[in-house]
Amino acid sequence: MQLSELGEFGLIDLIHNIIDKFKDPQQTSWKRLLIGIGDDAAAWQCDSIIQLATTDSLIQDIHFDLSTITWEELGWKALAINISDIAAMGGTPQYALISLAAPGELKVEDVSKLFTSMACLATKYGIAIAGGNLTAAPNLAITITVLGYSISKSILKRSAASPGNHIAVTGSLGLSAAGLKMLKEKISLDAETTDILRQHHLQPVPKVKEGQVLVEQGVKTAIDISDGLIADLNHICEASKVSARLKIDQVPVHPLVKANFPDYRELALYGGEDYELLFTANKTVVEKVKQTLNCPVTVIGDIVEETISNRVTLVGDRGNIIPRKKGGWEHFKDEYVNTEIT
Amino acid sequence: MQLSELGEFGLIDLIHNIIDKFKDPQQTSWKRLLIGIGDDAAAWQCDSIIQLATTDSLIQDIHFDLSTITWEELGWKALAINISDIAAMGGTPQYALISLAAPGELKVEDVSKLFTSMACLATKYGIAIAGGNLTAAPNLAITITVLGYSISKSILKRSAASPGNHIAVTGSLGLSAAGLKMLKEKISLDAETTDILRQHHLQPVPKVKEGQVLVEQGVKTAIDISDGLIADLNHICEASKVSARLKIDQVPVHPLVKANFPDYRELALYGGEDYELLFTANKTVVEKVKQTLNCPVTVIGDIVEETISNRVTLVGDRGNIIPRKKGGWEHFKDEYVNTEIT
Repeated sequence: MQLSELGEFGLIDLIHNIIDKFKDPQQTSWKRLLIGIGDDAAAWQCDSIIQLATTDSLIQDIHFDLSTITWEELGWKALAINISDIAAMGGTPQYALISLAAPGELKVEDVSKLFTSMACLATKYGIAIAGGNLTAAPNLAITITVLGYSISKSILKRSAASPGNHIAVTGSLGLSAAGLKMLKEKISLDAETTDILRQHHLQPVPKVKEGQVLVEQGVKTAIDISDGLIADLNHICEASKVSARLKIDQVPVHPLVKANFPDYRELALYGGEDYELLFTANKTVVEKVKQTLNCPVTVIGDIVEETISNRVTLVGDRGNIIPRKKGGWEHFKDEYVNTEIT
Repeated sequence: MQLSELGEFGLIDLIHNIIDKFKDPQQTSWKRLLIGIGDDAAAWQCDSIIQLATTDSLIQDIHFDLSTITWEELGWKALAINISDIAAMGGTPQYALISLAAPGELKVEDVSKLFTSMACLATKYGIAIAGGNLTAAPNLAITITVLGYSISKSILKRSAASPGNHIAVTGSLGLSAAGLKMLKEKISLDAETTDILRQHHLQPVPKVKEGQVLVEQGVKTAIDISDGLIADLNHICEASKVSARLKIDQVPVHPLVKANFPDYRELALYGGEDYELLFTANKTVVEKVKQTLNCPVTVIGDIVEETISNRVTLVGDRGNIIPRKKGGWEHFKDEYVNTEIT
């Protein structure tokens, strides 16, 4: 069988099984491991803190197209998506290791722009770029590991949702997918809209402070929206062994997406890469989060008892069930979108 | 200018300068950073331990050839070279994040073998595979991050060599380069020799215990031999701002390399990937290391005052100076060999 038949989620299960088979639970590393494969970042106990570690790659012509992204944007995005995984655990990013695989024909000037942008973003988030690796390769690939920590005893997991929880999301959705569509299909929009869409797709802002507030206010379950709202909600449901009812009319689609894209709902539900935080918690906790965070927080549905055949049900404004598209992109099978095995 | 003109070491300097320019030394991450770019692994203070982190990539057709390496060997090597970087700091490896970029046509069975081998090696070294990333890509690339720690207050650096130190090496050299040559040139040797050479090249054994003994016995300076004895000695000299006199007749070339390869000396001096530890220390400390370690430890030269124009001088058995080849492979300019920017 080929990877393209198994798909990335099948491959993750396979790898998870192999690692489980060989692991020695008596070893200190396994004893201290709090979160392994299957979340935004790995987590382990380290003296008084919880250590967090995540890694993510951007591959030329799979994740980015050098004809539509600048080197500065590429550097930003490669680091930002990793910081976002630490944000999704409620942690503080601290160190980054940057691995660049690149062809010898690449211009030094462009690599300078790439690293300048990463160094600049790192400083904004208090991250020290502590090392990495350089290697020649036929195609450009950037793999970054970000290490972080949490001083709180609890971190945000994918696996802590329970029936009765509200499902909520920070900010608004669809801008990134709309930006990708605009770039791919060369859609012409006014300058300001173009800038905003481009920036949200190519220079996403990791929600580190927001993640920390979620932990402080008692949220236990969160994920960053990278694969798409429905796909990421599905990840939470699978990890938590629950199902979800998503009220699609309540999904906060950004006004610029609504105004310019007739398929705005699909972009917000399936598009991904918004890097907003999707979380679940009881009503009281969601209210406290709403009062504390400076960004909008919208309740978009409820966690319900597990129905394995149907993890995420889309519900219309009259309680009617709306048929779902296939949920989320999948590597090897389809096209774009990374999947962390952390 | 292209990367191929600048070369990887020029690029490391460039990146180092960019990161230095943007770093904010008041940030906690920078304050706690003990070792950044320019060593085998990054190191930072974390409560009572020193945290270590390293990352290394293997890229298809740059670092390995699927026609001469099995999937099991590839998995082993990809993880082992990262463990070796933790060994070169005198640390204990603890967690690994594994990133696989692979084409959809890859067989699931082969990826299973790859991960089974990594999981097996991880368990041998007490490492928990805690996460990683999967992505589609035109070519196969494996990037691994290994996190480790040191409970000792001192770690092995590249930058602590001082004039008067002996230069010493664990084990014997040349087997890996001879193995590569045998595979590339399809050299036919007896079965036992073939196995040994193949294993040393494709399944190197990281010297974790040896690294820990070095720290315990008071060694301050070490590196693992990945780029080649002379290239790696050069890295120590540059980081420590010293020079070295290498007595080439004292370099412990493995008997099988001597017996089967007329160019055995070149293989041992320039070949690399032996993953033995090269270290410097005063005579007393080297003697203690010799008495403690179970493997051979050979003194092969001396650290001397800095001569920038000539970092590593090769000396013959009568004290005569021997001309050097260009030292070590360099990515982008030449061919094979990874360089850590940790």
